[in-house]
Amino acid sequence: MSAETGLQEIRKLLGSSGVIDNPAEMQPYLVSWRNSWEGKTPFIARPADTVQLSEIIKICRREKIPVVPQGGNTGLVGGAVPSPQGDQLVVSLSRMNKIRALDPVGAVVTVEAGVVLQTLQDEADKAGFLFPLSMSSEGSAQIGGTISTNAGGTAVLRYGNMRELVLGLEAVLPDGEILSNLKSLPKDNTGYNLNHILVGAEGTLGIVTAATLKLFPRLNQTVTGMAAIASVEAAMELFHDFRAECAEYLSAFEVISLPALRLVVKHIPGARFPSADDAPYYVLIELGSASSSMPLRDMFEAVVSRAMDEGKLLDAVIAENSTQAQQLWSLRENASEALRKEGPGLHFDISLPLAEIAGFLQKTDPLVLAAAPKILIAPFGHIGDGNIHYNMCLPNETTAAMSQTKKRIREIVYSEVTKLHGSISAEHGIGVERKAELKLYKSPVALATMRKLKQAFDPENLMNPGKIFD
Amino acid sequence: MSAETGLQEIRKLLGSSGVIDNPAEMQPYLVSWRNSWEGKTPFIARPADTVQLSEIIKICRREKIPVVPQGGNTGLVGGAVPSPQGDQLVVSLSRMNKIRALDPVGAVVTVEAGVVLQTLQDEADKAGFLFPLSMSSEGSAQIGGTISTNAGGTAVLRYGNMRELVLGLEAVLPDGEILSNLKSLPKDNTGYNLNHILVGAEGTLGIVTAATLKLFPRLNQTVTGMAAIASVEAAMELFHDFRAECAEYLSAFEVISLPALRLVVKHIPGARFPSADDAPYYVLIELGSASSSMPLRDMFEAVVSRAMDEGKLLDAVIAENSTQAQQLWSLRENASEALRKEGPGLHFDISLPLAEIAGFLQKTDPLVLAAAPKILIAPFGHIGDGNIHYNMCLPNETTAAMSQTKKRIREIVYSEVTKLHGSISAEHGIGVERKAELKLYKSPVALATMRKLKQAFDPENLMNPGKIFD
Repeated sequence: MSAETGLQEIRKLLGSSGVIDNPAEMQPYLVSWRNSWEGKTPFIARPADTVQLSEIIKICRREKIPVVPQGGNTGLVGGAVPSPQGDQLVVSLSRMNKIRALDPVGAVVTVEAGVVLQTLQDEADKAGFLFPLSMSSEGSAQIGGTISTNAGGTAVLRYGNMRELVLGLEAVLPDGEILSNLKSLPKDNTGYNLNHILVGAEGTLGIVTAATLKLFPRLNQTVTGMAAIASVEAAMELFHDFRAECAEYLSAFEVISLPALRLVVKHIPGARFPSADDAPYYVLIELGSASSSMPLRDMFEAVVSRAMDEGKLLDAVIAENSTQAQQLWSLRENASEALRKEGPGLHFDISLPLAEIAGFLQKTDPLVLAAAPKILIAPFGHIGDGNIHYNMCLPNETTAAMSQTKKRIREIVYSEVTKLHGSISAEHGIGVERKAELKLYKSPVALATMRKLKQAFDPENLMNPGKIFD
Repeated sequence: MSAETGLQEIRKLLGSSGVIDNPAEMQPYLVSWRNSWEGKTPFIARPADTVQLSEIIKICRREKIPVVPQGGNTGLVGGAVPSPQGDQLVVSLSRMNKIRALDPVGAVVTVEAGVVLQTLQDEADKAGFLFPLSMSSEGSAQIGGTISTNAGGTAVLRYGNMRELVLGLEAVLPDGEILSNLKSLPKDNTGYNLNHILVGAEGTLGIVTAATLKLFPRLNQTVTGMAAIASVEAAMELFHDFRAECAEYLSAFEVISLPALRLVVKHIPGARFPSADDAPYYVLIELGSASSSMPLRDMFEAVVSRAMDEGKLLDAVIAENSTQAQQLWSLRENASEALRKEGPGLHFDISLPLAEIAGFLQKTDPLVLAAAPKILIAPFGHIGDGNIHYNMCLPNETTAAMSQTKKRIREIVYSEVTKLHGSISAEHGIGVERKAELKLYKSPVALATMRKLKQAFDPENLMNPGKIFD
């Protein structure tokens, strides 16, 4: 036996509908979202169900065939792309896309890994519920991927990361066994919580095949506004005011810096400043409730007007209708796209303790500019979670000097983040892109413990090898 | 070298203030809360800090001395008590009881394992925050223990289990290394989440020494009421109504059955029925908000009066002040104590999908009564979480037949729970008490995976051996 015969056996098992081997059709599975990473694979395996996947993984284990699980392939760190060597089998979960059950009494839904996030959002909505995970890739991202990467996005502030939304999991482990724990219980203290080990493991400890997820009451009213503010400290004060008065309804508290908003207005058709066009920062705030009778708008106005009186705000607008709300959201949501249109960039997905964000920017901005005077720092992000996309636009140069400069800036940023007990990857994960930095900035004890775990689950290193670890 | 010399070395390291070896003083550390379990230990080791604990655990590893970590020793499944053989060293975290930092901007607090839960609640309150974990043992339970057992209680419905409150952890691993991850970040996707492996591991994978925990805005108003209802189905409908109208403020949704409430009224001085004295079930509901301006009482009354019109409720009272609210709470909180006063009992800490609770009781009550006609079934619990303390009063007999009957009832209950995808231990854990049942009712794949994890972390099986696993 060999990898070659194992692959033949897998092809036979899958049948023609379960195999993609035409180079053109394979291409989208082999290149990452931002085109940063590209790999090769013998073929794309598309199992029909969990039992079939279990059989495939048993063959892979026996024949030592490395496996790369893939969902919607929307990750930003190359975690779902095979290596260039061509020996890693891409296993796409996209055919396993059934919503198995929706329980309105328990407010839970059981879905397969290949369900697209937006499909789940829509199905939940039809049943009178909210599935809150939301991010710009939701039209393509699949639930299995959002679990394996512990996806974040704009609703984490209120509802938590994907981790907090998972009640039960079903997964195929590296030895091909099926771990079936699709429970819908908020309380279950029967031994180690194995679900949490698989959430955020980036497919290196097993393949998530289905999950039981929390649903929430559908929001029947939302109030969205944007405030122009003078500083990150003022944003934090405003955040504190909203938490004190209406923490329960606070669905979003996002920030966009003036440089980032200027790029949005420049590159995105129809985008314009919400109010003052020269405030250092803009904060997008949303309140939402399932109850139609709550005076959310009054609450919003009361907090904003008091903050204005106290000099915490420069200006504020509140959307009068859903179109205006969508316009405010699109300013924030298009920040990443606007920076991309401006030219080459450098992206950071950091998080910091809330109390440290202002100090971080005050200290790090000058260090970055000293290293690269022509750079434009244009941060934005989920400031209520401490998660800043500390992104930058670079001069359009591909010189060796620029490559050195980028390296130097990464060192500056990650070293400051680490000093302040922040994270070098708040929501995007490690994948291929950040594994060198993980080694540098994660504690040796944590790294050694992670390796023990990997070794225990996957002693042959066949599950998504080369991701997270070398 | 040997265990004996290792223990001498540990005594020396700890000094006299770190050792308890007087039999009378040792006693409280050797008997479990409900006197169900008792053990022996060479002495009680009380390390002064994490570094000292690390040194102790290194000696234990070298000399193969088994270790039993202990917090407030309030667990209900014997998880913190050493074995009767006397070779297991009890390590009490009680001296490590500092609140290291409280960050009001980030709304997080960093505490050592030995801090008593109530102390933390009080300190949070003084700073204007709520630390929501709440349970009857809060005056003795220590934070390290609540983390290692993933404690639940009455506030899980709104704020989650202890697991959901932990942002960062510091722990001494079985090899004595210190895992230091006291981060306060809601978003941190840098590799495997090791914190979650230690939460709920009952001290079998390492010893939690400190944690960074979430705080919430202090509730400046609460509304508490109790409704008399005809059935569990009606309770679920009422729960649905409260979620639809004020999910954001719903702090408690607890149930107490008529037999349980009758025992409370019988045994607890001052306790009396809140309204009708013959309803099959009573539901305790609490709304709370940080905002003083929210019309919580109006909301409560509106939901209750609509439910009354629709025939979902038999009767309801709303507390007029905090004394009345406390009286309603004490009916629920004294249920366990009232059953204990009635005589010998049989306790279950199960959870079920919300949609299955009514069916479970309808099917299981008759099966239990058929097996033991003289038994009194008196359930109560956290019904909003699906967590029922399905407790029973037994006739006062200690015959062999009674022991067989208890065994039979356990089989009936756990088998029904398992069929309905419930949990045989919702919040109390496994410890010694439920490890035989864990083996019977947990899936073989899950058990094998748990063992792999244990083996990877603690290959010598020195951390709380005999707990969770044989």
